[in-house]
Amino acid sequence: MPYTVPMPRWQPNAREQLTRAALSLFAERGYENTTVVSIVERAGLGKTTFFRYFRDKREVLFGADSPVDAAGEIAAAPAGASPLEAVAAALDAAGAQAFTPARRETLALRQSVIDANPELQEREALKNIGLTASMTDALRRRGVPDLTSTVTAQLGTLTLKIAFDRWIAAAGNADFAPLARQVLSEVQAAATQ
Amino acid sequence: MPYTVPMPRWQPNAREQLTRAALSLFAERGYENTTVVSIVERAGLGKTTFFRYFRDKREVLFGADSPVDAAGEIAAAPAGASPLEAVAAALDAAGAQAFTPARRETLALRQSVIDANPELQEREALKNIGLTASMTDALRRRGVPDLTSTVTAQLGTLTLKIAFDRWIAAAGNADFAPLARQVLSEVQAAATQ
Repeated sequence: MPYTVPMPRWQPNAREQLTRAALSLFAERGYENTTVVSIVERAGLGKTTFFRYFRDKREVLFGADSPVDAAGEIAAAPAGASPLEAVAAALDAAGAQAFTPARRETLALRQSVIDANPELQEREALKNIGLTASMTDALRRRGVPDLTSTVTAQLGTLTLKIAFDRWIAAAGNADFAPLARQVLSEVQAAATQ
Repeated sequence: MPYTVPMPRWQPNAREQLTRAALSLFAERGYENTTVVSIVERAGLGKTTFFRYFRDKREVLFGADSPVDAAGEIAAAPAGASPLEAVAAALDAAGAQAFTPARRETLALRQSVIDANPELQEREALKNIGLTASMTDALRRRGVPDLTSTVTAQLGTLTLKIAFDRWIAAAGNADFAPLARQVLSEVQAAATQ
């Protein structure tokens, strides 16, 4: 009998199937009450497949690298751009790459799961602090003074969060980028009252 | 032999002695390598006394309620005060009540311990998020619109952090309040570039 090398079966879209199954279970039963076994059952896949993509169920929510490289976008902004314009460019990229109409429903479901669980809220808050730190560094590397880098990055993260909430709440297929630009100007106005 | 009721010995300043012993050990050996036993030995007190004040060694760093009631100060600001002025009043109170010359050395040591440990940094970051949330609520209750409340509270927390770092770094006995006012105006200027 010839020896056959065991081939891992490649599942097209397995990651997405698992993510959808996990999110719907988190929303139905609560995050704490959902097991990996129930996720793979709902997805019609095996546990091995799950652990090929995620270390645990929390990674379904937080495992993916941010699809937007905010620091990279800030670095790539035109030399003459102000710190706030560089951050605005990163927000535009977020709209184009991450906050697309096709992903809106999944992102809204993910957010509702996080909002229902204090431990997940902490995790999300720490992730946002990491985002602010990486934008601060990217601005510093453009030669922006420390304090201005810190403040601008903080306002950028805040704008992203508020714009995201509005985008999720908006009826129909609102585009993210113009919404984010609008919020950025409101945030700036609020900072100067 | 007459029966003597065991009296808990009241230790004057036991809390402070334990805090000093803990902070110096954290700084010398690292937070992870310091045990409660070594803290009470250094303080010349008993374990029972330690656990009367703290649940664990982390509570030495984070257990005390913030000595400044930022939300209360914002609520108590004059009716005509702008949101930023209300936050500035809270910063003044921080200077008067918490960031006093007598506490400077202890606070600097505490900060150096936190800065050396990622887990403690996370804890501190989450505490700051709680502070921002309570200031946001206090501003809302003054009738300030949601977005302005969020932005102003965020700038307030940022100002507190930057002013604290400068206060610790400053030679001599710099007063906190004027330093914080100076940082607040720099933060505001940075937000409008």
